[in-house]
Amino acid sequence: MSRFFSPKYEALEPYTPGEQPRDMKYIKLNTNESPYPPTPSVIEAVREEAGRLQLYSDPECLELTEVFAKRYGVKKENLIMTNGSDEVLNFAFMAFCDSDHPIVFPDLTYGFYPVFAKLSGIPYEEIPLRDDFTINVDDYIGIRKNIVIANPNAPTGIALPLSDIERIVASNPDNIVIIDEAYVDFGGESALCLIEKYDNLLVTGTFSKSRSLAGARLGFGFGNPAIIADLHTIRYSTNPYNVNRMTMAAGYRAICDDEYYMSNAKKIIECREFTRAELEKFGFNVLPSKANFLFAESPEIDGGELYLKLRSRGILVRHFTKERIKNFNRITVGTKEEMTALLTAIKDILKENSK
Amino acid sequence: MSRFFSPKYEALEPYTPGEQPRDMKYIKLNTNESPYPPTPSVIEAVREEAGRLQLYSDPECLELTEVFAKRYGVKKENLIMTNGSDEVLNFAFMAFCDSDHPIVFPDLTYGFYPVFAKLSGIPYEEIPLRDDFTINVDDYIGIRKNIVIANPNAPTGIALPLSDIERIVASNPDNIVIIDEAYVDFGGESALCLIEKYDNLLVTGTFSKSRSLAGARLGFGFGNPAIIADLHTIRYSTNPYNVNRMTMAAGYRAICDDEYYMSNAKKIIECREFTRAELEKFGFNVLPSKANFLFAESPEIDGGELYLKLRSRGILVRHFTKERIKNFNRITVGTKEEMTALLTAIKDILKENSK
Repeated sequence: MSRFFSPKYEALEPYTPGEQPRDMKYIKLNTNESPYPPTPSVIEAVREEAGRLQLYSDPECLELTEVFAKRYGVKKENLIMTNGSDEVLNFAFMAFCDSDHPIVFPDLTYGFYPVFAKLSGIPYEEIPLRDDFTINVDDYIGIRKNIVIANPNAPTGIALPLSDIERIVASNPDNIVIIDEAYVDFGGESALCLIEKYDNLLVTGTFSKSRSLAGARLGFGFGNPAIIADLHTIRYSTNPYNVNRMTMAAGYRAICDDEYYMSNAKKIIECREFTRAELEKFGFNVLPSKANFLFAESPEIDGGELYLKLRSRGILVRHFTKERIKNFNRITVGTKEEMTALLTAIKDILKENSK
Repeated sequence: MSRFFSPKYEALEPYTPGEQPRDMKYIKLNTNESPYPPTPSVIEAVREEAGRLQLYSDPECLELTEVFAKRYGVKKENLIMTNGSDEVLNFAFMAFCDSDHPIVFPDLTYGFYPVFAKLSGIPYEEIPLRDDFTINVDDYIGIRKNIVIANPNAPTGIALPLSDIERIVASNPDNIVIIDEAYVDFGGESALCLIEKYDNLLVTGTFSKSRSLAGARLGFGFGNPAIIADLHTIRYSTNPYNVNRMTMAAGYRAICDDEYYMSNAKKIIECREFTRAELEKFGFNVLPSKANFLFAESPEIDGGELYLKLRSRGILVRHFTKERIKNFNRITVGTKEEMTALLTAIKDILKENSK
């Protein structure tokens, strides 16, 4: 820390992204990326756009916004596009929270929420998940604070039904409720259908998971035109050209090719259920996931040890050191081949362990 | 504004980017873009990278940082890469300014500085330029506040010599001095050589102007490792994947092809001087520019009127309504052909006007 760093960040602890080691080639199951590449037409659209890079991107993001709004049956005024969904989440924390408007979220959820709160000096409260890692919806009913819930939640993968989301939104009409749907395409129920009915609901999402564009950085938020306009005010006060030309072109084309991506999501769901069943055969406790990852623990081996042993076999999963979940690993669902390699490695490790 | 928008933004007025009209094809001289496209090898590198978009970009931005640091003869610890230079500027306002650490800048300069200040609730002071639109360096000597100076300045194009920058930096050792060098490749003197000597100096820049990558969004900051580490702390608390894969690939390749870009900058300088001489023949007052634009006024026609008449002839320049400069227009230097079209249009407009 330099002597110039503002003391307001004393308690700030930056987010830690999943590791990206360079020492060898790994089967990468640690950052919930898609195992499937983008379509050839995405690549072609990007190449074409690259010839125009001397010109700024459209700050209105108009073509992409229109095609995306059409895909989801909303108006373009209901939609904001951002540099990954981290950006729309940060904008929402900035826009709607302050020292008088705190925010609450589960104790086990996306690790960036407390970082965004600390970054903007926003008081926050972490509400413990139940022992089975489900959200106790009643904890959020009429709480009269801003709320952010990842649905499906991470790293658990557990989803809330739409009816529960609606109860939360309806019972806090004077507070913003953010539903972070990064993983919704893998079996969750989207709250998008509620944005007309509730002006306090922001639904966020990303092209990083189901749409194979993690490396392009494209996120979005859906909501009532008034709250979307507020987010644009923050965007135009931060980085009006936040989405670059190539990403816009990739996102546009991906929406045109959406059948491919949605069929990939289906494959990933199938592979998740296969992997889950196999892990359970090994005695694992696997939480019921509606995401493109599994959160699992073995009664036979410590979570941190399993993580290290998989790593030494060239398979990366994500291990968190937080007390309640330190025996678990979060395993991204890749291809059937990758999952088979994982299961073989786990079988070997458990055999070794029992000797 | 929604009923949820935080009252802390009451005074916030977002930045207004240059217009991007869609009604017809214009000669676009309003946003200081390069008239030259990126090299074929940039386009090829982007295309290749597009095939890996399902994977997150490297949050360390390692390869690009290394090649760029080598190009400028600094260590990678002296460098941060961002989503355009707006992002590194905003990070610097966030990191080093707060209610106890205000910032000062000229009254006529890049319009985003007051926006960043308001966004983060930072007190700021605008120091008037002299009547000839030069910066009075003595105004900044020992001022004991954080400082941001665009050098060359925008929209004037006027540059300060390195010796003046050094006096400002040396006389405020306990405050951060940000030198925004977006336009330095068109004839300015960079303060980069001072970052070893002064730990309070941040030099920022962009690939948007001389390197023909406005549409890719790539900016950077050079400084002492301690202040760069602080900016990374903000980056990892905001958007660790801020620079996407395609932009990293484009930036890397652009640095490898730097001779092309620097020779384009030379062409633009020549074209600027040609255009300036011609405008002076028409009686224009043209400020001495070291940037890729000219700031000019005619004694014969009102600045706003000239802007509109050029626009109706298919030529876009940038007009600002601020009192002191409302008779001027900021004209991006394009190709010789574009400048000839501009000069012909101006000649016609002046002739019409004198009837």
